[in-house]
Amino acid sequence: MVRIAVLGAGRIGKIHAASVAANPKAKLVAVADPFGDAVRTVAEAHGADAMTDAMEAIARPDVDAVVIGTPTDTHVGLMTRAVELGKAVLCEKPIDLDIAESEKAAANVERLGGKVMLAFNRRFDTTFAEIRRSIDAGRIGEVRQVVISSRDPGMPPAAYVKSSGGIFRDMTIHDLDMARWLLGEEPVLVSAIGSRLVDAPLLEQYDDYDTVMVTLQTASGKQAVINNCREAVYGYDQRVEVLGSTGLLTHDNLRPTTMRLTTAEMTDAQEPLLNFFLERYAQAYRAEMNAFVDAIADGKPMPTTVRDGVLALRLAECAVESVRTGRAVTV
Amino acid sequence: MVRIAVLGAGRIGKIHAASVAANPKAKLVAVADPFGDAVRTVAEAHGADAMTDAMEAIARPDVDAVVIGTPTDTHVGLMTRAVELGKAVLCEKPIDLDIAESEKAAANVERLGGKVMLAFNRRFDTTFAEIRRSIDAGRIGEVRQVVISSRDPGMPPAAYVKSSGGIFRDMTIHDLDMARWLLGEEPVLVSAIGSRLVDAPLLEQYDDYDTVMVTLQTASGKQAVINNCREAVYGYDQRVEVLGSTGLLTHDNLRPTTMRLTTAEMTDAQEPLLNFFLERYAQAYRAEMNAFVDAIADGKPMPTTVRDGVLALRLAECAVESVRTGRAVTV
Amino acid sequence: MVRIAVLGAGRIGKIHAASVAANPKAKLVAVADPFGDAVRTVAEAHGADAMTDAMEAIARPDVDAVVIGTPTDTHVGLMTRAVELGKAVLCEKPIDLDIAESEKAAANVERLGGKVMLAFNRRFDTTFAEIRRSIDAGRIGEVRQVVISSRDPGMPPAAYVKSSGGIFRDMTIHDLDMARWLLGEEPVLVSAIGSRLVDAPLLEQYDDYDTVMVTLQTASGKQAVINNCREAVYGYDQRVEVLGSTGLLTHDNLRPTTMRLTTAEMTDAQEPLLNFFLERYAQAYRAEMNAFVDAIADGKPMPTTVRDGVLALRLAECAVESVRTGRAVTV
Amino acid sequence: MVRIAVLGAGRIGKIHAASVAANPKAKLVAVADPFGDAVRTVAEAHGADAMTDAMEAIARPDVDAVVIGTPTDTHVGLMTRAVELGKAVLCEKPIDLDIAESEKAAANVERLGGKVMLAFNRRFDTTFAEIRRSIDAGRIGEVRQVVISSRDPGMPPAAYVKSSGGIFRDMTIHDLDMARWLLGEEPVLVSAIGSRLVDAPLLEQYDDYDTVMVTLQTASGKQAVINNCREAVYGYDQRVEVLGSTGLLTHDNLRPTTMRLTTAEMTDAQEPLLNFFLERYAQAYRAEMNAFVDAIADGKPMPTTVRDGVLALRLAECAVESVRTGRAVTV
Repeated sequence: MVRIAVLGAGRIGKIHAASVAANPKAKLVAVADPFGDAVRTVAEAHGADAMTDAMEAIARPDVDAVVIGTPTDTHVGLMTRAVELGKAVLCEKPIDLDIAESEKAAANVERLGGKVMLAFNRRFDTTFAEIRRSIDAGRIGEVRQVVISSRDPGMPPAAYVKSSGGIFRDMTIHDLDMARWLLGEEPVLVSAIGSRLVDAPLLEQYDDYDTVMVTLQTASGKQAVINNCREAVYGYDQRVEVLGSTGLLTHDNLRPTTMRLTTAEMTDAQEPLLNFFLERYAQAYRAEMNAFVDAIADGKPMPTTVRDGVLALRLAECAVESVRTGRAVTV
Repeated sequence: MVRIAVLGAGRIGKIHAASVAANPKAKLVAVADPFGDAVRTVAEAHGADAMTDAMEAIARPDVDAVVIGTPTDTHVGLMTRAVELGKAVLCEKPIDLDIAESEKAAANVERLGGKVMLAFNRRFDTTFAEIRRSIDAGRIGEVRQVVISSRDPGMPPAAYVKSSGGIFRDMTIHDLDMARWLLGEEPVLVSAIGSRLVDAPLLEQYDDYDTVMVTLQTASGKQAVINNCREAVYGYDQRVEVLGSTGLLTHDNLRPTTMRLTTAEMTDAQEPLLNFFLERYAQAYRAEMNAFVDAIADGKPMPTTVRDGVLALRLAECAVESVRTGRAVTV
Repeated sequence: MVRIAVLGAGRIGKIHAASVAANPKAKLVAVADPFGDAVRTVAEAHGADAMTDAMEAIARPDVDAVVIGTPTDTHVGLMTRAVELGKAVLCEKPIDLDIAESEKAAANVERLGGKVMLAFNRRFDTTFAEIRRSIDAGRIGEVRQVVISSRDPGMPPAAYVKSSGGIFRDMTIHDLDMARWLLGEEPVLVSAIGSRLVDAPLLEQYDDYDTVMVTLQTASGKQAVINNCREAVYGYDQRVEVLGSTGLLTHDNLRPTTMRLTTAEMTDAQEPLLNFFLERYAQAYRAEMNAFVDAIADGKPMPTTVRDGVLALRLAECAVESVRTGRAVTV
Repeated sequence: MVRIAVLGAGRIGKIHAASVAANPKAKLVAVADPFGDAVRTVAEAHGADAMTDAMEAIARPDVDAVVIGTPTDTHVGLMTRAVELGKAVLCEKPIDLDIAESEKAAANVERLGGKVMLAFNRRFDTTFAEIRRSIDAGRIGEVRQVVISSRDPGMPPAAYVKSSGGIFRDMTIHDLDMARWLLGEEPVLVSAIGSRLVDAPLLEQYDDYDTVMVTLQTASGKQAVINNCREAVYGYDQRVEVLGSTGLLTHDNLRPTTMRLTTAEMTDAQEPLLNFFLERYAQAYRAEMNAFVDAIADGKPMPTTVRDGVLALRLAECAVESVRTGRAVTV
C-alpha cells in the first residue's frame, strides 16, 4: 500500500485525491492546503486528514509519496523537500516558470536519485497511449511528421493570463511534451509565430499571445508542428497526427456520446466536444495516478521524469525567443 | 460501334441518350418520343435523329440496340418487337406492373434468345459494385444478413402515385433486386408491413403505403430486410449493410463535397445528401450503359436479364400479398 | 442512504455490487450467493456481509432494497418476497422464461404497489439515453422507423443455449425493450424470421435460432426492425437508428480508443469494438444503479417497471410464434 | 463559342484538351506539341488540328484562347506572345522557376491588360470551393488558422526532381496559393524547415528536400501552416482545415467508393485514397476549364491571375531562403 499526501485542494488537487482514493494499491493519508474549507471538504470526502501546511504533510512518517498540485511558484520547494526526505513525487507541470530554477531543481533531484514524475497527463490518455504503442509496434514505420492541434475552448480569466508565464510555458508546454514523446527524438530547432487574434488588448498588456504555431525539427530531420489557440468555440480540441514511412495515425476528439443528427440542413452532425481538460482527460488523470503508484509499488522508473519537465520548458523558452527574434532557435 | 436508339425523351431518356453519346464504342442514332419538342431537344444535343414513333426507331436497319425509357405500359410491346427484330434491349424496370404479363414477356424473350438487360442501375454504382466484388473476393465470408435502407427525399406527386403500381412495385423493387444480388440466393419467404405515415389521405385513396419494411429469407436461411420511406427530409438515403461470417461491409451516403462544419452547437456536420436518383446515380447510369454496350460489342451475356426483372417483381407481389394477408408468403 | 443487498455473486452480481459501493447515496450491506467462495470475494471487496441465503438477505431489517442477479428461475420468488416485505427491487431480465408466470408476478407486484425496476441496462447508456432525449426534444419530429442492429461477438456455450429460453427471450428481448422505448408506442403486430447460420446442429437440438429478424408495427403505423446474430466476428455490435418526420438519429459503436490507422492497404481503420456487454455497457450499469438508488431516495417512480419486463417478454413470445406459424402475430 | 488551342500534349495537355472538348461553350481548334505522335493522338480524339509549333497555334486567327501545358521554361515566351496577340491564356504553374522572370512577365501582362489565368486547379475542387464559400458566407467568422496537409503518394523520378525547381517551387507552391486563398490576406512572414527523410542521397545531390513545413503569418496575425512530404504510402493526401472565430471547417480525402470493411482486426476501414492528382482533381480540372471559358465568354475577370502565380512563387522563394538562413523571412 502506497501512502500518499496530496498537496493542494484546488481543481487539480481534487482530481488527484479522488484518483488516489480509487486506487486499491494506494491510501490517501492527507490533503494539505492553506484554504481550510477547501481542504476539509476534499479530505473528508475520502477519509483523509486535512492539513494546512504542505511541508508538514510531506514530513509525516506515514506518507510515502506526495502529489504536488499547488501554485507553480511552490513546486520547486515542495519537490526538493520531498526528495530530500526520500518521498516519491508526482508534480504538476511546470516545475517552475524560470528555466534556470527548473534546471537547478532537476539537477538536484537527479543528484539525490529522487523519484519524481512530472504530470504530463496526456501521455496516459488511452488514445494517445495507443498511438505511442502503435508507433513502437512498427505499425507506421519511421516517424516523419507530427501535427498537433491543441485549442482551448475559451480565453482564461485575465488574472490567470497574468500569472501563467505566457501561452508557450502554460499551454504549448503540454504539446511540446507530446511532440517530444511522439517524435521519439529531441527537437534541436524551434521556430514559432505568435498572434493576438482573440483578445489583443489583454495579451498586449502581458506581452503574450493567444494564437501560436511552433515547428520543431530533430537532428535526424523529423518534424513536428503545434498549432494552439486560446479560443475554439467548438470546445477543447485535442488532436495529433503522426505520419510515418509506412502509414499514418490519427484520431477523433471525444464527445459525451456518439450520437449523430441528420436533418434537412446537415447530415451526421456530432455532439460538441468534451469541453475542457477535466472532462476530456478524466481517464488520463486516473491512469496517470495509477502509473505513479505502480512505479512506486514495483520499484520501477517513473514513466515521466523531472527531466521531461525541464526539456519541455526549454522548448517553450526557445519558442518565446523565436517569436521575439524572428529566428529559428537551436535548442 | 454499337448503333443505338433511345426510346423516350423524358427524364431518364435524356440520361440514357447522354450516356450513349459519351460512350466511344456506341453511336446514338435516334431518339424517339411522341412529344416532338422534347425529342428534338435531346436528339439535337447529340446529333441524332428525332423520331416520334418508337416502333419505327426499333425497325431502322441502322439500329443495333434500343434503350426503352418510355411509360411502363409500353415496355412489353417495345421489348418484344425489338427482340423479334434481333435488336438488343436495355429496358427500364419494371417490365410491366402485371406479374403475369411480365412473366409472359420474359418467357418470350428467353424463347427467342433475345438479349435484354433490365435497368437495375444501382448494381453499377461504384460503391455497391465494390461491395458485391468484396463479397465475391471472400472478404466477409458467407453472407448472413443484408440490411437495406432506401428512402426517397419526398413524396412523389399524386399523379405519379396513382400510376406507380404501388410502393412495392415502384420503389421497393430496386431494393428487392439489390437484396437478391447481395444475398446471392433467391429469397423463398417474404414478409412485409406497410404504413401510411407521410400522407395517409393520398395513400388510402390508392390502397398504397408510404413507409414499409420487407424481410426476406432464402432456402439456406440467409436474411435480408428492406426499410423504405417515401419521405426522408435529409435527402435520398441509399444504404446497404452486409453481415458475413468473417466481417461486415457498410458504406456512406454521397454528398456534393466532403466538407465538415464544426460550430459551438455541433461538430463535424456534413452536407445534405445528394438529393435524388439522377444526382446520386449519375455515375451508375453511365456505367450501366457502358456495361450494356460492352455486352453487345463483346457478345457476352447481359449483366442483368429480363428474368431479374420478373424475379424482383414477383418478390414485390409477395410483399403486397404479405401486407394484405398478414402472412409470410412463400415465393 | 439506501441500504442494499445484492443477490447473486456471478458476473452481473459483481457489477451491481461495485455500482452500489461506488454510489455515495447507497450502502452495500450484503451479498448473497450459495457459492461461498464467490460471495466472500465480492462481499469482502466492498466491506459487505457475505451470505449464502438470498431470502435471509432480503429479510434483513437493515436492507432497504435488493438487486436480483440470480438464475432466472429464482427471480419471481425473490422479487415477490422482497415486495411483500416492502423492499425495492432491481431485477435482472427476464422476470421468468414463462410468460404466464411473469404476468402473474407482475400483477402481484402491481397489486402490492411494489417498487420494482427491471434491469434494461441499455436505456441508461449515455448514447441511447441522448437519442431518447433528442426524440423527446422534438429534434426529429414524429418517429417513423426504428432500425436496431444487435449482434453478439460469438455463440454462447451450449449449456447457456440450453437454458436460455431461446434467442428471442434471451437476446432479442433487450432489443424489443429498446424498440418499445424508442417507438414511444406499444407494438401491436410482430413478424419474425429465424435461421441457423452459425451453429445449426446445436440450435436444431434446442429448436432455437442464431440469426433472426423481427419487425414490429404500432397501432398508428410506426415500424421497427431488429436484426440479431449470435456471432459477429468484429465484436459486440449495438446500433439503433431512428427515422423521424424531420430528421434521423444514428450513432457509432464504441471502441477502446478513437485511433485510426491508415496504411497502403486501407484508410482510417478504427479499432475493434468493445467486445461484450460488460465492457460496452460499463457506464450503463453504473447509471442504471444510480437511477435505481435515486428513485428510492427521492420516492419517485422507477424508471423501468416490472410491466416493461412483461411487455418485452410478450413481444418475444409473439416472435417465437411468428417464426413457428409464418404469420404476423397480433400482440 | 470560345475557340481554344491547347499547347502541350503531355499528361496535363491531354486533360485540358478533353475538358475543352467537353465544354459546350468551347471548341478545341488545335493541339500543338513537337512530339508528333502524341499530339496526333490527342488532336484526333477530339477532332482538332494537330500542330507541332505552339507559336503558330497561338497565331491562328481562329484561336481565341490558348492553354499552356508545355514545359515550364517555355511558359513566359508563349504567354507573352499570346497576350500580345490579344489571346486569353490559361497557364500551368509556375510562370517560371525564376522569380525575377516571373515578375517581369506578370508586369508585362498587366501592362498590356492581358487576360491570363494561372492554373491553380485546387481552387476549383468542389470541396475546397465550398470551404471558401462557407468562409465568405460567414459560417466560421474571422479566419484565424489554416492547416494544410499535402502529401504526394511517392517520390517523383530523379529526372523530375532535377528540373523541378525544388519542392517549394514545385509542390508547396500549390499549398501556398491555397493558404493565400483561404487566409484571404497576404502573408508577410514566412518560416520553413526542410528535411530529407525519404531519399536523402538523391535530394542532397540537388540541394532539395522531401519533407517540409512552412508557417505563414499575415499582417493582421492570421496564421497558416503547410506540411508536405513527397511520400505518403497511403496515397495522395490533400487536406485543409480552417479555424475561425465561430467555427471550424475540415473535410475528408476522396476514395474510389465509400465502402467500409469491418473484420475481427479492424472496424470501418475505408479504401485507399484516390492516388494522385489526375484522379483526385479530375473534377477540378474540368471546373477550372469551365471557369476559364466562362470568364472569356462573359467578359469577366479571370478567377485567378498571373499575379497569383507571382505571389505564390514569391512565398516559395521566401521558404527556400528561410530554410537556408534559419530566419523568418519578411515577404
